[in-house]
Amino acid sequence: MLYDATITQFSKMLRNLATFFDKAAANAEMRKFDPEILLQSRLAPDQFALLRQVQIACDTAKLGVARLTGKEAPVHADDERTIADVRARIESVLGWLETVTPRDFDGATERTVTQPRWQGKTLTGGQFAMNHVIPNFYFHVTTAYAILRHNGVDVGKKDYLGPMPFLDPAA
Amino acid sequence: MLYDATITQFSKMLRNLATFFDKAAANAEMRKFDPEILLQSRLAPDQFALLRQVQIACDTAKLGVARLTGKEAPVHADDERTIADVRARIESVLGWLETVTPRDFDGATERTVTQPRWQGKTLTGGQFAMNHVIPNFYFHVTTAYAILRHNGVDVGKKDYLGPMPFLDPAA
Repeated sequence: MLYDATITQFSKMLRNLATFFDKAAANAEMRKFDPEILLQSRLAPDQFALLRQVQIACDTAKLGVARLTGKEAPVHADDERTIADVRARIESVLGWLETVTPRDFDGATERTVTQPRWQGKTLTGGQFAMNHVIPNFYFHVTTAYAILRHNGVDVGKKDYLGPMPFLDPAA
Repeated sequence: MLYDATITQFSKMLRNLATFFDKAAANAEMRKFDPEILLQSRLAPDQFALLRQVQIACDTAKLGVARLTGKEAPVHADDERTIADVRARIESVLGWLETVTPRDFDGATERTVTQPRWQGKTLTGGQFAMNHVIPNFYFHVTTAYAILRHNGVDVGKKDYLGPMPFLDPAA
């Protein structure tokens, strides 16, 4: 289930995040402003701007899965500037997440996980996923959404949640 | 694990959400404005205000768990007006979540779940938790955080994530 809670959901949510930028680009064109202004927008002066929120959402997914599975995540230079760059960053992480299999999560729940800023302290993989990776990931996707919403881009809850995998009534 | 992903995490995050309002009340007192103004603040004119975000976060936790377990959730009248009311709402849901046990989740992953607005369509409990309850819950907690942050309340990521259950190095 850690595979579903991370790989499956993060892939879906990153695809949803990419669609926010289709709406952002269309909105900027309609209102005739440079869409890159949105990437530098924020909700408070001492908060990360939209571009950084997307970079952190991507990194939370990538580094969280890397620490849970022991696999090496791709490195990104954080040099994005345009909406096209943002889309490419998301696509790059999606491509890497696709290479991770449920088998890679064998033992992940019990694995001992640490992070540089924890100064040697550790969590089990299961606790790390629940208490850190998953809440952080949704935090940054939602904050990206909130920055766009605050700036008049017509993203809605359906864009955030994406399609539901409803059961086939005939099944 | 559905128990951990819902009951354990939702209880923790609702406690974190309550601490946002300690900071909100202190900030309003320092800046000498009525703290209830924050409860009516929003990031966009066609978005729910802070109070409603908290109500929905509470309802997502409560109704999500009820649908996953078949237990009956408490009813709330949505008549909160003050920060004290908001704290009481959160406490009420926390109290109910405490009554739910891991055993109540037996069969929850395979259970067929529906919601009034789905017009008869269904999800498995596992898909419902992953695709709907969990992302929605974090969405509304994060949006509450974002509204406070936008209005100058000094909430930070540590308030959002809360304490980490680090392993005892001597263990």
